[in-house]
Amino acid sequence: MATIDVPNQVSFVEDAEALRKACQGWGTDEKTIISVLGHRNAAQIKQIRLAYEKLYQEDLIKRLESELSGDFERAVYRWILDPADRDAVLANVAIRKTSLDHHVIIEISCTRSPEELLAVRRAYQARYKHSLEEDVAAHTKGDIRKLLVALVCAFRYDGEEINARVANSEANILHDAIKDRTFNHEEVIRILSTRSKMQLLATFNRYRDDQGTSITKNLLGDSDAAFLVALRTAVRCLNDPKKYFEKVLRNSIKRIGADEDALTRVIVTRAEKDLKEIKDLYHKRNSVPLDQAVAKETSGAYKALLLTLLGKED
Amino acid sequence: MATIDVPNQVSFVEDAEALRKACQGWGTDEKTIISVLGHRNAAQIKQIRLAYEKLYQEDLIKRLESELSGDFERAVYRWILDPADRDAVLANVAIRKTSLDHHVIIEISCTRSPEELLAVRRAYQARYKHSLEEDVAAHTKGDIRKLLVALVCAFRYDGEEINARVANSEANILHDAIKDRTFNHEEVIRILSTRSKMQLLATFNRYRDDQGTSITKNLLGDSDAAFLVALRTAVRCLNDPKKYFEKVLRNSIKRIGADEDALTRVIVTRAEKDLKEIKDLYHKRNSVPLDQAVAKETSGAYKALLLTLLGKED
Repeated sequence: MATIDVPNQVSFVEDAEALRKACQGWGTDEKTIISVLGHRNAAQIKQIRLAYEKLYQEDLIKRLESELSGDFERAVYRWILDPADRDAVLANVAIRKTSLDHHVIIEISCTRSPEELLAVRRAYQARYKHSLEEDVAAHTKGDIRKLLVALVCAFRYDGEEINARVANSEANILHDAIKDRTFNHEEVIRILSTRSKMQLLATFNRYRDDQGTSITKNLLGDSDAAFLVALRTAVRCLNDPKKYFEKVLRNSIKRIGADEDALTRVIVTRAEKDLKEIKDLYHKRNSVPLDQAVAKETSGAYKALLLTLLGKED
Repeated sequence: MATIDVPNQVSFVEDAEALRKACQGWGTDEKTIISVLGHRNAAQIKQIRLAYEKLYQEDLIKRLESELSGDFERAVYRWILDPADRDAVLANVAIRKTSLDHHVIIEISCTRSPEELLAVRRAYQARYKHSLEEDVAAHTKGDIRKLLVALVCAFRYDGEEINARVANSEANILHDAIKDRTFNHEEVIRILSTRSKMQLLATFNRYRDDQGTSITKNLLGDSDAAFLVALRTAVRCLNDPKKYFEKVLRNSIKRIGADEDALTRVIVTRAEKDLKEIKDLYHKRNSVPLDQAVAKETSGAYKALLLTLLGKED
């Protein structure tokens, strides 16, 4: 369930006018920006951007970028992009880092639905004139490349039908690979990148039934090699995305000064989807409500926007 | 350009009635089936199937399958499927062969546009409740698997923008791999499976400029290993699909008794696209018109359908 609080009736023209007014004159009225954009869903924001463009012959995003700064600017920018376009931007930022951020690429590949991931690949091409897999492949090498490219290119079967025999045999293949510490075994990549999510759930369940421990636990090896970490991230994203997002939030808040990139990313990408459940998981796991934890680590307009997206009333 | 000869005005109901009549009574009127379906494009055939279903509460394809047999049945069945669905069937047939037919998988992956390939993957899932890459991966192994899965999963950038610097450096990478006979080098697979077709053309041209011979010629090694053959097929499909199809036709006709599967496949999949140019290439290369060569190697209703699709008037 979503956390954002969206009114039934929205006038896109009035919203565009309010945003224009908030950006005019001396200083910027951040409160208005939050009270409008923080209470609109992606479809409405799209309409507001169109209305704004028509009224003022100016791109709302560009205007906001020139008015705002810091964490607040980045959060607003990420929030008001169309979801597929936003993921394309997040992926590109991750690719262009000095050392490519595997986690973001894996998160986008494995927690979005097959159709959503396809929309991201389309948006990426429209924006960057390259394919997503092309840029991921050009910025990685070795086993990590094999895993990331396979995950990014996946267009998984999205139906309910599973094959118990396959779950059984592939649980064994995964177990053998883990036992022998041959995680980069091509069979492991094949299974994780081509099977449907329902099939993988069945395989992971079978693994746990056979071995008495979960595959994610078994992937917590002595070694902390990048590939092993990437593999574990992929399994966690495929197996239980909400639990995965809770942990990303937990780690981002625990860091000294907080990891704003991760915090913003999870809140803006999940606010319209399942942030309610992620919030509940967070509360249960950390014995403190997520909005309270976020409030403690952030400040100013950035804090106000995140709390609005988390559904906290002023 | 297409070879099929399609009238401007078509009545889908009249077509459905004619087909019904052709299937009724003693024996089947193959001539009518050819004169209707051989002169309709994919969009029209879709409408005829709908009209037929509505009029007779029966699936036209199932009815034709029960009436027809042999090469003619297979050709009619392939021809009247929706193009993406047809490719899904062709791919599945190739996968289920005792030894998976690489060429068909490579041909579909590399000669269709990125959007067409995506439509094939969608159609494959709808029909078989698996993803195409999942089935390809489950039926292959080693280097061939790496190449085929990467090609099938590609969603290439389809625009005009190319990067001359990349063409230069990747022509060198390909040349080094060929020189060292390390075709299975992961860089080779990355380049062939992620770069846009325009970019690959620039890279292949650069290769020829630098080396004085084409990459396809350089891939004609002493060894005839399956992987080398697959690589060459991929390069040929990406570099010049029409020339590739001409060669498939040439080889299928040269074989004693002809390879009907390949002959049918190229004619039904290209008839509405570029079979005109492929015919011209064939004539030029073999000093005999394609329809004449096809007529010599085939017979009966099968021959009549192929010649109709090739645009030959009775």
